[in-house]
Amino acid sequence: MFVVLRPGCTSEQRNRLVRAIEAAGLRARVSEDHHRVVIGVVGDEDRLRSVALEAFDGVERVVTLKKPYRLAAREFHPADSVIKIGDRAVGGTALIVMSGPCAVEEESIFQAAEAVSAAGADVLRGGVFKPRTSPYQFQGLGKPGLKLLRDAGRHVGLPVVTEAMDTRHIDLVAEYANAIQIGTRNMQNFALLKAAAATNLPVLLKRGRACTVEEWLCAAEYVLNDGNDRVILCERGLVSFDDAVRNLLDLSCVPLVKRLSHLPVVVDPSHGTGRADLVPAMARAAVAAGADGLLIEAHPRPADARSDARQALTPETLERLVPQLHAIREITRGTPFAGVPGT
Amino acid sequence: MFVVLRPGCTSEQRNRLVRAIEAAGLRARVSEDHHRVVIGVVGDEDRLRSVALEAFDGVERVVTLKKPYRLAAREFHPADSVIKIGDRAVGGTALIVMSGPCAVEEESIFQAAEAVSAAGADVLRGGVFKPRTSPYQFQGLGKPGLKLLRDAGRHVGLPVVTEAMDTRHIDLVAEYANAIQIGTRNMQNFALLKAAAATNLPVLLKRGRACTVEEWLCAAEYVLNDGNDRVILCERGLVSFDDAVRNLLDLSCVPLVKRLSHLPVVVDPSHGTGRADLVPAMARAAVAAGADGLLIEAHPRPADARSDARQALTPETLERLVPQLHAIREITRGTPFAGVPGT
Amino acid sequence: MFVVLRPGCTSEQRNRLVRAIEAAGLRARVSEDHHRVVIGVVGDEDRLRSVALEAFDGVERVVTLKKPYRLAAREFHPADSVIKIGDRAVGGTALIVMSGPCAVEEESIFQAAEAVSAAGADVLRGGVFKPRTSPYQFQGLGKPGLKLLRDAGRHVGLPVVTEAMDTRHIDLVAEYANAIQIGTRNMQNFALLKAAAATNLPVLLKRGRACTVEEWLCAAEYVLNDGNDRVILCERGLVSFDDAVRNLLDLSCVPLVKRLSHLPVVVDPSHGTGRADLVPAMARAAVAAGADGLLIEAHPRPADARSDARQALTPETLERLVPQLHAIREITRGTPFAGVPGT
Amino acid sequence: MFVVLRPGCTSEQRNRLVRAIEAAGLRARVSEDHHRVVIGVVGDEDRLRSVALEAFDGVERVVTLKKPYRLAAREFHPADSVIKIGDRAVGGTALIVMSGPCAVEEESIFQAAEAVSAAGADVLRGGVFKPRTSPYQFQGLGKPGLKLLRDAGRHVGLPVVTEAMDTRHIDLVAEYANAIQIGTRNMQNFALLKAAAATNLPVLLKRGRACTVEEWLCAAEYVLNDGNDRVILCERGLVSFDDAVRNLLDLSCVPLVKRLSHLPVVVDPSHGTGRADLVPAMARAAVAAGADGLLIEAHPRPADARSDARQALTPETLERLVPQLHAIREITRGTPFAGVPGT
Repeated sequence: MFVVLRPGCTSEQRNRLVRAIEAAGLRARVSEDHHRVVIGVVGDEDRLRSVALEAFDGVERVVTLKKPYRLAAREFHPADSVIKIGDRAVGGTALIVMSGPCAVEEESIFQAAEAVSAAGADVLRGGVFKPRTSPYQFQGLGKPGLKLLRDAGRHVGLPVVTEAMDTRHIDLVAEYANAIQIGTRNMQNFALLKAAAATNLPVLLKRGRACTVEEWLCAAEYVLNDGNDRVILCERGLVSFDDAVRNLLDLSCVPLVKRLSHLPVVVDPSHGTGRADLVPAMARAAVAAGADGLLIEAHPRPADARSDARQALTPETLERLVPQLHAIREITRGTPFAGVPGT
Repeated sequence: MFVVLRPGCTSEQRNRLVRAIEAAGLRARVSEDHHRVVIGVVGDEDRLRSVALEAFDGVERVVTLKKPYRLAAREFHPADSVIKIGDRAVGGTALIVMSGPCAVEEESIFQAAEAVSAAGADVLRGGVFKPRTSPYQFQGLGKPGLKLLRDAGRHVGLPVVTEAMDTRHIDLVAEYANAIQIGTRNMQNFALLKAAAATNLPVLLKRGRACTVEEWLCAAEYVLNDGNDRVILCERGLVSFDDAVRNLLDLSCVPLVKRLSHLPVVVDPSHGTGRADLVPAMARAAVAAGADGLLIEAHPRPADARSDARQALTPETLERLVPQLHAIREITRGTPFAGVPGT
Repeated sequence: MFVVLRPGCTSEQRNRLVRAIEAAGLRARVSEDHHRVVIGVVGDEDRLRSVALEAFDGVERVVTLKKPYRLAAREFHPADSVIKIGDRAVGGTALIVMSGPCAVEEESIFQAAEAVSAAGADVLRGGVFKPRTSPYQFQGLGKPGLKLLRDAGRHVGLPVVTEAMDTRHIDLVAEYANAIQIGTRNMQNFALLKAAAATNLPVLLKRGRACTVEEWLCAAEYVLNDGNDRVILCERGLVSFDDAVRNLLDLSCVPLVKRLSHLPVVVDPSHGTGRADLVPAMARAAVAAGADGLLIEAHPRPADARSDARQALTPETLERLVPQLHAIREITRGTPFAGVPGT
Repeated sequence: MFVVLRPGCTSEQRNRLVRAIEAAGLRARVSEDHHRVVIGVVGDEDRLRSVALEAFDGVERVVTLKKPYRLAAREFHPADSVIKIGDRAVGGTALIVMSGPCAVEEESIFQAAEAVSAAGADVLRGGVFKPRTSPYQFQGLGKPGLKLLRDAGRHVGLPVVTEAMDTRHIDLVAEYANAIQIGTRNMQNFALLKAAAATNLPVLLKRGRACTVEEWLCAAEYVLNDGNDRVILCERGLVSFDDAVRNLLDLSCVPLVKRLSHLPVVVDPSHGTGRADLVPAMARAAVAAGADGLLIEAHPRPADARSDARQALTPETLERLVPQLHAIREITRGTPFAGVPGT
């Protein structure tokens, strides 16, 4: 840790900082150069977390060296983590395709399950608790939908993943689902993260639409720190100034996360663009960028869907797409996750 | 509602749309002009909410005319809403100042309460459940903090407001607080909004850091629609590409909300900038923009604060600031909320 | 075009609008439904460009149906445009790789040219007029650099592309280069666009870092409208709130542009991420998304580069990367540019 | 300057860095602590500008201490700069109001000049070279407009400011105008900045809509470094994800610039919101935030304006607004530009 002082800071200001650092059991090394004073802190900077050095008079900037997450870091676990959803592996060499409708509907979920299974999907996804911007939009089927989703998954032999939105529903969701999704709006709903961790199911953690990669890994750390090491990260698009797309899909986060963390990362090009006509291209691009899998909305008849119809693929398009994804995965498989020489 | 078709759409595509609109009990008026076909929908467009017209083949765009919120709209309630926190009014002609430390601390909360009361604050604010990016940061005092906050408020005769983060804690918070804050990360935590609505306490609803004004008013609608009409909106800064400030305070949302809604709107320049040295200027600007009040962090000794120390004002600065705020309010009081002629 | 009036507008306001529309030689069709009045405009909406309908009292919104660009639109030219830089084709089935150092340096440009040629690049790129944030940064070699770049290109048999920043330098650049780059900061420098158009050389038009796809196509339209139909679009990353990357590369613009326009689009993952360790993954992803080519910075010894060293690939990495790009292109070649069914 | 090395860097990597630093005539001080190596650079870090330390193997981050601008910095010139446009002062204690139509039109410019003069404006503004997104929009009157603008200014005794967009037009503009505006799209058009500097007229430098405050001050530095110390900064709104407003006006940059720089800063709430109904509130807020002046669009009959009609005030609204602005200025005048204690 370094504390950079403002030009013209007083020696009294400097001394107060040194005393605060030493009071925390660390050493302060003052260097003065041209017009700037910088204090280097020797020792474990965690001890200074409860001292607000940046609020001391005369301080311009505090530069920390430690990352705010530990268990999620690549340094903590150098190999790629591989996480099972039901009998399917996420991470490592495999490529996982999770697909299904945005919202579970009684009249279509079995047909959807058959279609995505036939198209080569590994996991069935579908929402039963739907976070909707307006209270007047369809809010999902709730508990009856959970049973439908599980039954449809069993019908075709696929594990299922669905979103939980309320700490009071986590146990109910855990009863029916093989993995729990935390949605983009809840990425920093820390109570929900801790409740999901307690189920010991895999947690599919969507990135907040205006959250940095570091904040995302810190959210994962909440789950890991509570003893659940089964976190799968999911990029689903960021807020954008261009309304030609619903969200701005950030694929560069894929190789970046691979460098910073051992956790698997999948991509949701459906919410990531909001337009079915852009989904196949972005699904291919996600795999080429190194994603471990995809979350793709598909519906037997998109125009009949009760939620996000515009972004759902038809079964036919999904079926043509999946083999392309595996072919691209073949090409990129050999490339190590990072490092200029070998990428 | 209008449905704009793509250039070159077929008559079959057009007819399928007309049939879908008529099936919902509405009339479709097709107009064809130069190279474009547009279908105007006559009747209540709410009936089409569950029909995904935008996913029909050949559709370029669906233009809706109805706002997605109703109870929050100025049209529904033309006069300004005035909401009481304890015995203090928010909205209308008054200017409310809510102040206190970011996090309630046993050793300082009484002193903080005395200081902000002496400086002219109307409400004491302080966090006991703290949403923190990393699990290793100070998470707040929890229940003991609630009692401390209430007692400190009583000590100086001020009502108190504090944040709730978990549906399971709402009743506990409601027992001690005069108003419940929903934080920026939870603006679209719909389960929490509904739980807060059920307390019938005033809800201080912070804007999500990447949420549009329309999304914000829709979040308010969740509370209003559950029968609690005591919502106070709070702007606290948006995500920014410039790290010179912690957040980008959007003051234009103040006159915009005044035009669109009857709900009072306050501004938090502390989180809105993250820098104590910018807070006074932005507090003044917020009042000049028409804000009904301010949420300002203050701490007896900022450098000792356990959270967000850099943005806390000293009691002395707060004391100098408050009279300026009231003086600016005097100047702007006469200006109607909107409309070119009279603003 | 539609003009949506505010709830409660007066008949006088409505009549003034109708008169203004009719004065432009168009027909106004008023429809009234529930609480809303909407005026449909029949006829060529271009005639209303100089009438500010949105500024009339009582108007809530004006919805236009025509795109603000014409020559750049797919409708105008349904087939993909193919543009030659020297003897290399951009667009259509080929994949073009443009590579070279950020800034031309006397001591390294010949070695760089040999390296990128050996690695399989088709075009040599290098800057001689450098747009730099601070006036104290290296500003490029200027005219002597132009000659060096051309000679290095000839040495290895590659055409060259370089940036022009000033209308007064366009003719000089055109003397030496096979294509003219317009940088991200100058995407809306309309005088420069028109000067570049006049050279009749291919124009490599980088997207502004906070410009929408529509604004980008409008900038292309400036060149096309001046009679130069050789525009190549280049995505190079958008402004981002996450400083883990220098820019946020928007790959979804690739299939989007393919749908909206016939112009070829290439991607610059070097500026698009600012980190050499992310460039190979994003180059692969760009091709998978359907890009017609890449602009990749490479330098014989990145640490010696005088500009943007952190993002330059070594020749070895480039050499390993290029065959992967062609292999991915093979997989995606058959997919049509857009449309749900076939993508 | 500090160079932070990656965990696990080798001693060879470390030594190469030390040699590079020493080769530039500086001293390298290596500190090793827990798992991190940090190299402090002793001496003038400018000498390392041409050495790409961040591209050396093993480097995680380079932390620089020097600002990239010098002449624009408050440290270089502690007192507020006061700049004359004609006989009107910008900066210091005065509040300057610049007003007029977006585009100069023959039929209205004299009437507009009379109106803004009567309303209390100090400077007449109007565009004759208009940067327009599409080539099919009105591009301004060009040279004849310059003469009209000057004559209208003389008619009412006001100096005039107008935008230049092309280095080849700078001298022409300088012949007629009392100050030259550099528009938001050209903030980093460095050739234009240098040409404007050479006129020795005041330069009104609008902030790029996605540029940081530091980039803005660096753009000012281009002008200052060429010997023209008459730069006036103008905030005009940033790119936004919320299309309820045209741009997102950043008022926090006002006190921030006051702290970092001695240059005067004015605000353009017209482009900053794009909506006339929000302009008065934001104009008041800008003054309360400490702005030295305002740039406000006004037009005798907004609905007849040929450009940006929606954001123009009527003369009546402007006339009511100006005295409010001066009254708010009175209240804030005494507050020093920065520093927690005194603000």
